[in-house]
Formats: sequence, C-alpha cells, structure tokens
Amino acid sequence: MGIILLSLAILPYLGVGGMQLYKAEVPGPIPDKLSPRISHTARILWEVYVVISAVEVLVLMVGGMNLFDALCHTFSTMATGGFSPKNESIAFYRNPFLEYAIVFFMFLAGVNFSLHYRLLKRNPKVLWKDEEFRFYGILILGVTLIVSFNLWSSSEKDFFHSFRLAVFQVVSLTTTTGFTTADFEKWPSFSQHLLLLLMFIGGCAGSTAGAIKCVRLLVLVKQGTKELYQLVHPHAIFPVKLGGKVISSETLQGIWGLFFLYLLIFFLASLAISMMGADLVTAVSAVAATLGNVGPGLGAVGPADNFSHLPVAGKWILIACMLFGRLEIYTILVLLFPEFWRK
Amino acid sequence: MGIILLSLAILPYLGVGGMQLYKAEVPGPIPDKLSPRISHTARILWEVYVVISAVEVLVLMVGGMNLFDALCHTFSTMATGGFSPKNESIAFYRNPFLEYAIVFFMFLAGVNFSLHYRLLKRNPKVLWKDEEFRFYGILILGVTLIVSFNLWSSSEKDFFHSFRLAVFQVVSLTTTTGFTTADFEKWPSFSQHLLLLLMFIGGCAGSTAGAIKCVRLLVLVKQGTKELYQLVHPHAIFPVKLGGKVISSETLQGIWGLFFLYLLIFFLASLAISMMGADLVTAVSAVAATLGNVGPGLGAVGPADNFSHLPVAGKWILIACMLFGRLEIYTILVLLFPEFWRK
Repeated sequence: MGIILLSLAILPYLGVGGMQLYKAEVPGPIPDKLSPRISHTARILWEVYVVISAVEVLVLMVGGMNLFDALCHTFSTMATGGFSPKNESIAFYRNPFLEYAIVFFMFLAGVNFSLHYRLLKRNPKVLWKDEEFRFYGILILGVTLIVSFNLWSSSEKDFFHSFRLAVFQVVSLTTTTGFTTADFEKWPSFSQHLLLLLMFIGGCAGSTAGAIKCVRLLVLVKQGTKELYQLVHPHAIFPVKLGGKVISSETLQGIWGLFFLYLLIFFLASLAISMMGADLVTAVSAVAATLGNVGPGLGAVGPADNFSHLPVAGKWILIACMLFGRLEIYTILVLLFPEFWRK
Repeated sequence: MGIILLSLAILPYLGVGGMQLYKAEVPGPIPDKLSPRISHTARILWEVYVVISAVEVLVLMVGGMNLFDALCHTFSTMATGGFSPKNESIAFYRNPFLEYAIVFFMFLAGVNFSLHYRLLKRNPKVLWKDEEFRFYGILILGVTLIVSFNLWSSSEKDFFHSFRLAVFQVVSLTTTTGFTTADFEKWPSFSQHLLLLLMFIGGCAGSTAGAIKCVRLLVLVKQGTKELYQLVHPHAIFPVKLGGKVISSETLQGIWGLFFLYLLIFFLASLAISMMGADLVTAVSAVAATLGNVGPGLGAVGPADNFSHLPVAGKWILIACMLFGRLEIYTILVLLFPEFWRK
C-alpha cells in the first residue's frame, strides 16, 4: 500500500520520473476529484486493496488452499512480492484453478489502483478508456500467445497446457510478482528472451508492480513516432498526448530521465555482477530481476535456483538495485545528494 | 565520406535524431562559419579525409605492409568498415607497431571530422574544449584500462601484452570498425560484457562511426542528472547544456526519440533472431554488431566466427539493422511513411 500511495499521492507532486502525469488522475487534493486530502486518498485505496484481497483469499480457499496458504499467497499477490510458503511456488499445487485464479489477481495487482476504485464505483468504461491499461492488457495477451505457440511448437505438450504455463509466467513477470509454475530456464531461448524483456516493462503506474511501468514505455513509443511525423512535416506541431491530454515537456523529460537512469543503473550493476565472474545471462538477468523487483532471473539465478551463491559484494549491489527499482530511482538518488540535506 | 556529409551537412537541417546540435558547429552555410555552401563543406571534409588517409597509408607501409594491404586497411580504417584482406584481420601481422598505428587511425576516424578540420587549421585547443571528444577519449581510456587489468589478472600474460590486446579491441569496437587482434569470445565474461556495451555507444557524431554516438549519450546523462537537481530545487531552471550552449527542447526530444527507436529496433530484431533458434548472447550481440555497424559480435557470431550459419530470414533482418543503424534510423523510417511520398 505504501508503494501505491507513494506513486499515486506523493510522487506526482514531487514530479518524479514523469509521475506528474497522475496529478489529475488520482483520488487526491484536486478540486474536481474524489477527495481533498492525501489521507482520504489513502483510505480509498486501502478499501480497494482490502476488498480485492478478501476476494482472493476466498477464491484461493475455494480452490483448495488452507487459510494460512491462502493468506500468504494473497498478500504476496497483491504486493506483487512473489514469496510463497512452498519451495516449488505455485507449481506445488498442480491445480489449474488456483493457477488461473492467481493469474487473475496478479493481473489486477498490476493495474493502477485508482482505476480499480473507479471500477468499483460502477464506471466500467474507465478501464478500456485508459491507454495504459490497454497497453498492459494487449502486451500481456500478445506475449502470452507468442510464448504459448513457442512452447507448443517446441515440445510434446498440447496447446492448452502450453498456454497455461505461458500465461502464468508472462503475467507473473510482467506484474513483477515472481511466482512460478515452470522452470522457464528450460524453455526455448526465444521465450526466455521475451520473459527477460518483460522484467523491464512491469505493470501499470499506481500499482504495486515494479520496473519501468507501462505508461512510461507507452509515452516513449509515442515520442519516438512523433519525431517521425515531425520529419515529414517539419513545421507542424505534434504534441505527445495520453488519454487525449497533451503531456508537458517537463513530464516528458522526467520520463526520459527515469528511463535512462534505469538503463544506466542496469548496465553498471550488471557489469559489476559479471566482474565477479557471473556469465552474461546470469549477470544481466540478476540485475533485471532485482531492479524490477521481479524475483527469479535466468541462468544461475533462474526460477529453480536462488541468489545465495553470489559473492557478498554482488548481493549488496543487488540489494541496492532492489531499493532503487522499488522507489523509482530518483527518491533514493536525491538522498545521496549533499544539497538535499543542506536544504 | 557520404556518411560524414550526411551527418554534418544534411541531417542537422532535417533535425534527425537531435543532429540540430551540429547546425552551427560545422563548416556550412552559416554566416560566421567557414563556407557558405554544402559543396564547399564537402570539399573541406574531403581534404581532411584524404590527408589523414595518405598519412595512414605511409605509416602502414613503414610498418611493413605492402601497398595493396596498406591501401585496403586504410580505406577500411577511415570508413570504420573493418574489412581486411587477411582472414585473421590485423592479428595476421603479429606486429605491435602496425596494431598501435591502426589503433591511432581508428581513434581519429571516430572523431567528428569538423574537429579534424579545425585542428588542421592550427587550433588544437578546440579538441579538448569539445565535450563529446572528451567523453569519447575518457571512455576509451577508461574501458581500455579496465579490460587490460581484467585480462592481466585472468591470464598468464604480462600487463603490456594485455594492454595491447585491450586497447585494440576497445578502440575497434567503440569506433565500430571491427578489426580484431584477439578472439575476445575467450576473454573473461566481464570484458565481453564491456565490449558488448561499447557496440551501442560508438564514436563521435560527424565521424564514420556507427551506433548511438557519444554526443547523444552525453546529453542523455546530462538530462538524467538534471532531473535530480530539479527534484532538489523544484522551482529552479536547469537547462541542459553542451559546450556552454543550451540544448533546445526539440533537440533533446530528437535525441531521446532516436535513442528509444534504436533500443526498440534492437529488442525487436534480437527477439526475431532468437526466435530462429539462436541463443541469447548470439541474438543480442548479432543485432548490436549489425545495428552499430561494428562487425563481429559474441557467441556464434564472434570474431573467429561469421554470420553465414544464420537462417536466410535472420540475414535479411540483420541487413535491415545495418541500414537502419548506418542511416540514423529516421532517414530510413521516413521512407516507409506513405505521407512522405505523397508530399
């Protein structure tokens, strides 16, 4: 909840990484919006969080989990944390109903919580109207289908089994939850490659998901194509828009800045990990998985392995990555600034 | 030469990928500048190109090459092309003098040619004053030293031999030339990782080097840190400057747009290559090496291998990557636009 509040109620006012986008979008101290105070925003978002969590606990118990497991998995789903009391993660249950249920709730946990609130207020159109949600939904659907076909064509399994494995890992990694039902290190390298890229994308802003977030990538794609139009029509003005609203130049710069720092930290940290002797895939995926708060990586830190074999210095670097990724980089970097403390 | 002219005389006026930066910097049709016409610019740059090439031919012949080899290697150095009449590339000669000479000329070929011109006009201060040149020089020096120590500590070789191998491959890959004197696939994974990143950076704008180019990365770093200052002082205005001049918001957006499209094409093309069965390192480095016009990659397309074993569709994709990378992406994408042709 702290993370959702941070990204919906606090970062927009600090202007961190382009989160100004959400200034007017969220229940908060804006005249025409739901509530005039951050504390009220918090209460509203807590309600949504508690309602969805309660439903998930019930559904998991219906699927056969005991209360303790259902609670643990619910907390871990809603926080997109990914810890499971079972060593095999969700694969332990060998239960398609539970898997699809957790897929559904992971998907919800990766959606902007202010959308959930508006949805609960009986405004279902709001969902499909939200450009970030569309991007998120289409991304997950598209990658799931591609991975399903890749698994299907490269193994003996039938399509539905391939789909079941694909949708679980794709949703788990896109929402940066990190539950697993398959050792995707043994999948074809194309699927692994796709999963690795998902670790950078993450869920929607204003959710508990980590990584760069869909809205930022969506804006970057728009900016990239805008430059193309600009070349064809050098004197025309093509503002970059989201949800019909023009994105200001400051917001754009905030998004670019965060994107670049994310990549910069990724490159430097993965270089440091490979300096300690890890191979390229392990180094790259260990940093992608920690910076995005995903959990499992590839290579020697894959879903069937863990991070314990890394040297101590490597662990410290990955700890820093987890913090940087979780707190949108800038909030941590600012603390390292002497000027911040002087002020 | 076409590439230098394109990037110094034509792209700045089209505003491609932030190349507006060079509008006032280059010999061209600006009142207070060297020459009023692009054709004059071309002649000036040709002179520089011919002078440096002639010197290189002489130096290589002094080092023991015959005229044919010296000419071939000179053309290939100045164009940062990387083709050698020898199968072993420069390793064939086992001659430190030739290696260091080619390192020197590869380094020159990676520098903005308008700087060379001003240097020939006896204005040596211009070199160190140029922020991009400083970035380029420090980058090459820093990475060379790191790789030298990494090679030294992981093998039996003495430091000077490690340095000789390191500086050659680092300069060759940073300038996207692609000559080799060592099979760097057998180097420690940390050095390979560093070399892979160099393939994205490339030389200076206005040189024959490919890839993203130093000036763009320099501006991106500045933008990233600017956002940090902005967080500490929300109401202050921190313009992003290069060489003391403020970079306009349009130029910044052009740079971001190119950077993002570069990465997007990289991700999509490397996914396509791994879909055809290549492992992650091969797929990623094959695309990095072609998009950056480098030549050798890692894995199955390393310096001792070639690209012939890739499937035909993969070759077409890599051909497209080479064109996109060479022509700064936008110039190719614009051709695919129906609106461009209608106009």
